Amino acid sequence: MPQYAIGLDYGTESVRAIVVDTTTGRIAGQSTRPYTHGVIDEYLPTNAQKLPTDYALQHPQDWLTDMAAACRKALRASAASPDDIVGIGVDFTSCTMLPVLADGTPLCLTSRFANVPLAWPKLWKHHGASRETDRLNHIARERKEKWLNQYGGVIGIEWFWPKVYETLAGAPDVHRAADVWIEAGDWVIWQLATGPFPRCQTSQLIRSTCQAGYKALWNRKTGYPSPEFFAAVNPKLKNVVADKMPGTLLAPGQRAGTLTPASAKLLGLRPGTPVATAIIDAHSGVPGAGVAEDSTLVLVMGTSSCHMLNSKVARIAPGASGVQDGILPGFYGYETGQSSVGDAFAWLVDTFHLSHSEMTRRAQLLPHGSAGVMAIDWLNGCRTPLMDGRLSGAFLGLSLNTRPEQLYRSLMEATAYGVRRIVDNFRHAGIPVKRFVASGGLPARSPLLMQIYADVLGQTISLAESDQSVALGAAILGSIAAGNKTLPQAIHSMARQRTDLLYRPTPTGKKRYAQLYPLYRDLTNTNAQLPTIMRQLRDFG
Amino acid sequence: MPQYAIGLDYGTESVRAIVVDTTTGRIAGQSTRPYTHGVIDEYLPTNAQKLPTDYALQHPQDWLTDMAAACRKALRASAASPDDIVGIGVDFTSCTMLPVLADGTPLCLTSRFANVPLAWPKLWKHHGASRETDRLNHIARERKEKWLNQYGGVIGIEWFWPKVYETLAGAPDVHRAADVWIEAGDWVIWQLATGPFPRCQTSQLIRSTCQAGYKALWNRKTGYPSPEFFAAVNPKLKNVVADKMPGTLLAPGQRAGTLTPASAKLLGLRPGTPVATAIIDAHSGVPGAGVAEDSTLVLVMGTSSCHMLNSKVARIAPGASGVQDGILPGFYGYETGQSSVGDAFAWLVDTFHLSHSEMTRRAQLLPHGSAGVMAIDWLNGCRTPLMDGRLSGAFLGLSLNTRPEQLYRSLMEATAYGVRRIVDNFRHAGIPVKRFVASGGLPARSPLLMQIYADVLGQTISLAESDQSVALGAAILGSIAAGNKTLPQAIHSMARQRTDLLYRPTPTGKKRYAQLYPLYRDLTNTNAQLPTIMRQLRDFG
Repeated sequence: MPQYAIGLDYGTESVRAIVVDTTTGRIAGQSTRPYTHGVIDEYLPTNAQKLPTDYALQHPQDWLTDMAAACRKALRASAASPDDIVGIGVDFTSCTMLPVLADGTPLCLTSRFANVPLAWPKLWKHHGASRETDRLNHIARERKEKWLNQYGGVIGIEWFWPKVYETLAGAPDVHRAADVWIEAGDWVIWQLATGPFPRCQTSQLIRSTCQAGYKALWNRKTGYPSPEFFAAVNPKLKNVVADKMPGTLLAPGQRAGTLTPASAKLLGLRPGTPVATAIIDAHSGVPGAGVAEDSTLVLVMGTSSCHMLNSKVARIAPGASGVQDGILPGFYGYETGQSSVGDAFAWLVDTFHLSHSEMTRRAQLLPHGSAGVMAIDWLNGCRTPLMDGRLSGAFLGLSLNTRPEQLYRSLMEATAYGVRRIVDNFRHAGIPVKRFVASGGLPARSPLLMQIYADVLGQTISLAESDQSVALGAAILGSIAAGNKTLPQAIHSMARQRTDLLYRPTPTGKKRYAQLYPLYRDLTNTNAQLPTIMRQLRDFG
Repeated sequence: MPQYAIGLDYGTESVRAIVVDTTTGRIAGQSTRPYTHGVIDEYLPTNAQKLPTDYALQHPQDWLTDMAAACRKALRASAASPDDIVGIGVDFTSCTMLPVLADGTPLCLTSRFANVPLAWPKLWKHHGASRETDRLNHIARERKEKWLNQYGGVIGIEWFWPKVYETLAGAPDVHRAADVWIEAGDWVIWQLATGPFPRCQTSQLIRSTCQAGYKALWNRKTGYPSPEFFAAVNPKLKNVVADKMPGTLLAPGQRAGTLTPASAKLLGLRPGTPVATAIIDAHSGVPGAGVAEDSTLVLVMGTSSCHMLNSKVARIAPGASGVQDGILPGFYGYETGQSSVGDAFAWLVDTFHLSHSEMTRRAQLLPHGSAGVMAIDWLNGCRTPLMDGRLSGAFLGLSLNTRPEQLYRSLMEATAYGVRRIVDNFRHAGIPVKRFVASGGLPARSPLLMQIYADVLGQTISLAESDQSVALGAAILGSIAAGNKTLPQAIHSMARQRTDLLYRPTPTGKKRYAQLYPLYRDLTNTNAQLPTIMRQLRDFG
């Protein structure tokens, strides 16, 4: 009898469940449910109050109800029996987090706090903590906190502590009433393994080293930031870790527990089914792309890009977040990002009413280097390596003969130069990068883009075989929670790269881009003139 | 009885004649004739041979035949009698030049050279002398020729000696057979005052200090470059000045002679009518805009812009050509330029199928600084101050929300910053700039552009009253050739600025641009990173 693992993939708009054959990786059944309340960014569902423009919330009940519906439907579609399910894995957007009671109940579902927006789960892209983020960064730099280097020197506005601090500042009652501050991915695992609420127990709360490491400034050696740091930020935060951060930290894929009878009933599964520790959605793409080894860079390419690298060496690279057990247990996991990739191409096409297919057709006919036009790809700021949202995009080399397709291709080339910059920085720091695997929506849609990446990197790029690599990664983690296989065994049997399509560098492309890339690099150096002036320009935007 | 002066305005595509009341400046009659042979840039009219792509020639017979037709028609329209015409002035594109025999006959009209393209008049925008220009510059720099500073340190590919040298290199027979190398404007004056050919005499040849000063490296103190310089370029050029540059140099407006019976008959005018020394078309816009004084910058704004300034002081300013008697007698005339202005706006609109009026409407609603977008206006290279055709345009400050109107307005602002840069350079060199008068096609069409200029300069800008200021300037010079008035008298009675419309800086605009302009200036400094990288990028274009 075949055995199956379930992957529960929590995206921004919907939750997907897939049922996967653990021997072959075949997806036997799947189902996607949009969240009943969607992204809550205009009105609070309880009293319809208007939300500030930088708010983005979610409804925690959706995470259970819609997930359960998707899971039951996927199971039916797969024709698998609950007895054939060896484990469940969960990936979740991050940092999506919420304040809860000790029994797991979200504060926003209590009558006291139902009408308080800051009591609701803050979605990853909630940007309400602007001032709080500045202060956290200011104090961290002032105190020369060592952990700051592991995050490229900057705490992001979307991370965990800015959201906690924003709540303390804006709704102190909520912070006071919260027994636990928790990542949404960890909360789901807690519901499955000890709940659902109000039956959860903090003594059995398992948190993921992935979410904690990348978003909550945790590391295996020194834990979360110290009470002294938090006290310097705000005296009321001093004991936030001791008071409100219970739980045991495990790496993604390690067994967090098993389904309780109540949660098994909710999902239509067998009580006792193993549940794996959660993982951030992008990071789930690493096992989902069939990558079990160190030194392989996994590029998850979409509107923005995220690049993940497992390594045996712990080093500091500019703008890279490095976390022990951050992606897969036993490795030092690095994460870097580009804030606009597909978004940048879409901006050009939408703003000027062009067509992707026509632009691609014409861009393919252009020489390497877009006939003298160069772009800087920071239309949504620069994440890695400069970690600065005030940076912006640019076009150079324009003449009276410049055509739209030159701008289009130059944007593609700029995102490729950005990846090369990241790879060079890793190598320069002593972190090897040997292989490249691309996944996400863009690689399948744009062969031209992938060829440009291969030429700019001067390296062969493989493609993840599955177009569901994130959900597949969650299922793989679910399968190892069963304890019958090692992680490399599970990854290699359930996921792989395409063998029918590889992007190899062409001699001309490689040579030409080796001449052009230094121009991009020089323009985008931290202290170069262009970034400096972009930051000043932003004050006029 | 009113008296009239005639202005003959030789443009790129057509020649215009205007008959102007010398007391009021009223245009009593006018007529425009497209050149019969147009711009000759595809096939030679004699044997239909294909021309190289960088060629642009004209037919010298058109300059007489089409001019005479226009002159007669304008005279008829004015109802003036030939006896009422006190003088004739001529402005001409420059450097448009040709090789001729001693009797004034263009070599291209001789049977021996009719089929030799390099024997034909080279229009200002003929770009065949690329290698020759490089060598002239190389030798001038190597020999540290003092006159080079007066031209911003660079000899332009469109100038006189590159075109002579190109002919020597490509058609040595033509150069050998040429008795005289001559600017087209000077050739026309020569025809009127001693010809037409083949009756011209070199003993009575008058050349303009304007054309000679700005295009043929001549200055009042040391004349043309030395035989040693020319010999270093090519031994066969050593005596080119002594052998092939006969003539007396007079300032524009000084009397070059009077109509011969034959030329009077051609034009339908009275023999003995005074003829003024020629002037370059753009420079003619200075008297035509009613500017007789020093320290007033005249901006002739169109597809490209040219800025002229008469001054009592002789200094060196970056990228400015400074010539004694270059524009008006008695002044040191400075000329600077921007290679793409209206052209840049048109590029954006045409390339992305936008509309000027819609872009203007939206750009008007934007804050000063285009909401954080900055352009560099070098889409056709930079003339003043960097004198470098390898430079290119740029946009900075782009985000995923950037709209086309931000690019449009930022290009306008960039051309304004470019002018401010030029004005600052003049002042820094000790050359005062006190008033601003705009003329040409753009100022009347774009109030937004003019308001931006006033705000960026922080100064009031007046508009030339006449929309024919170039032709009007020629007529004014014609009127003073009669000898009855001083130049300021003639200018003030025949031309002026509008009193109903002035562009004054707004306090907000002035303040905001004072913050933004330094960013543009820092980006575009000679040795800044952006220009340096633009030059390297050009190798990939």
